[in-house]
Amino acid sequence: VHNGIEYAVMQLIAETYHLLQRGSAWNNDELADQFNWWNQGPLSSYLIEITGQIFQKVDPDTGRRLVDMVKDVARQKGTGKWTSQDALDLVVPIPTIDAAVAERELSDCVAERAGINAAYPPPPGLLPPSHERRRVKGEGSVESRMERALHAATIIAYAQGLDLLRKASSAYGYQLQLGEVAKIWRGGCIIRASLLEDIRAAYQAKPDLSSLLLAPRIVDLLGKEIADLRSTVKLAVDLGLPAPALMTALAYFDSLRCGKLPTNLIQAQRDFFGAHTYERTDKEGTFHSQWDS
Amino acid sequence: VHNGIEYAVMQLIAETYHLLQRGSAWNNDELADQFNWWNQGPLSSYLIEITGQIFQKVDPDTGRRLVDMVKDVARQKGTGKWTSQDALDLVVPIPTIDAAVAERELSDCVAERAGINAAYPPPPGLLPPSHERRRVKGEGSVESRMERALHAATIIAYAQGLDLLRKASSAYGYQLQLGEVAKIWRGGCIIRASLLEDIRAAYQAKPDLSSLLLAPRIVDLLGKEIADLRSTVKLAVDLGLPAPALMTALAYFDSLRCGKLPTNLIQAQRDFFGAHTYERTDKEGTFHSQWDS
Repeated sequence: VHNGIEYAVMQLIAETYHLLQRGSAWNNDELADQFNWWNQGPLSSYLIEITGQIFQKVDPDTGRRLVDMVKDVARQKGTGKWTSQDALDLVVPIPTIDAAVAERELSDCVAERAGINAAYPPPPGLLPPSHERRRVKGEGSVESRMERALHAATIIAYAQGLDLLRKASSAYGYQLQLGEVAKIWRGGCIIRASLLEDIRAAYQAKPDLSSLLLAPRIVDLLGKEIADLRSTVKLAVDLGLPAPALMTALAYFDSLRCGKLPTNLIQAQRDFFGAHTYERTDKEGTFHSQWDS
Repeated sequence: VHNGIEYAVMQLIAETYHLLQRGSAWNNDELADQFNWWNQGPLSSYLIEITGQIFQKVDPDTGRRLVDMVKDVARQKGTGKWTSQDALDLVVPIPTIDAAVAERELSDCVAERAGINAAYPPPPGLLPPSHERRRVKGEGSVESRMERALHAATIIAYAQGLDLLRKASSAYGYQLQLGEVAKIWRGGCIIRASLLEDIRAAYQAKPDLSSLLLAPRIVDLLGKEIADLRSTVKLAVDLGLPAPALMTALAYFDSLRCGKLPTNLIQAQRDFFGAHTYERTDKEGTFHSQWDS
């Protein structure tokens, strides 16, 4: 599960990088500055820190930045896949982790990517060049919106992973203390992050929290940041740049938050074509109807 | 795989329903009219047809529409889950099917949904009421944009399922003819749809097509419809209504279409923290670097 969260956070960072780099032509120095700056704030974490360092590394062979010489095809050891498969067995939704695993797989579809890139016209639009936009610093700038978007999506990715741990603990009798898990992760691992202190405190205050998204401090944070996640997703949509992890994080939040889901239609369809029965809002039991009469 | 595609298409239809119903207060008669109308066009399919019928069914107990009495909690027989798990074993990305499976799981998180719905403020905006908007008919209306968005996303969901079949066939020596598969599905099953005739023709013309998205007729269709998928995703984002299947369909397309992916950063991070090595764009082989020096 640690590695599933790691996949999700790495994919979220990669999408943010893509939006800055291809969306508005930030160069590696600007990217290094930004990630180093972000590492001083709420995003402070090992993965943000090493990302800042990566952008600075010069390739001894070419004199260019090494990150630009690395092929965009991901390899996997299988730990993300196992997290997704275990979650499916436990019937726990972890869509942002699933999306991160799928996106690594997709990056390896080299022939399909080349063919489809050639077959379709380029994305609809790009941001103004970076030197124009970098002048706007502060709360309303693209990068401060992205900082809050990345923070919000990271919280949501953790919420998914912790929900899987909670339900696995219950199914298998692990008796996990999620506050302790957060403390251990914080101590030293790839996903160590200052956010884990908020998570630890949340589970210490309420060990049986049914979702990280219900911790008062998280409600406060996410309530402020979710608008920036929305605007960042829309930016990606407009630019034609893929943002599956940012999108599924937002969809996970909106699914849990929106009250009634349209799943009643899915249940009606299943009962229509397969007599799979449905439950009702007004009484107990399972029911079957002849829908086409 | 048939059932995986079925999950995805049902989720796409449910999201469209949600946008029309909660996004702009369409009533069941309007929804029935719209789905019946869509069933006369490119979306023509068994699932669209029964959806139109479902909105018309009156509950004998209450006199209300039966669909409104159905609980929004999905049940599953496990076939969607198996599709996702098999795809993970075969390293084939099928993110829209994964998202549909996760969304059914999420609908069953009843306590978390109630808590999170109460803890966060409502979505930021709604469309104008339906009687205002229904006057605008034709190409630019919300429902005609949604028709093209749903069609585009359905094509992309089929592309994912067919890609899984193609790769499973190759891995297990099934020697599947995808044109024949499309013909069989078209003949009579839950996902039967007029789109399957385009799919059959595409694979008959080119049996070794590496992605449905590369068939000339599909390139033509999707090229026209993708802008509507973008605007529909943005509408969902603005309304605060979840659209994980529409979003992952768009992200799958944009990932395959955008040329370079930001996966080079993920490979650099993996080499930084785990010495997992990386490949280069300018020469063969695998490489490892000391990134922080």
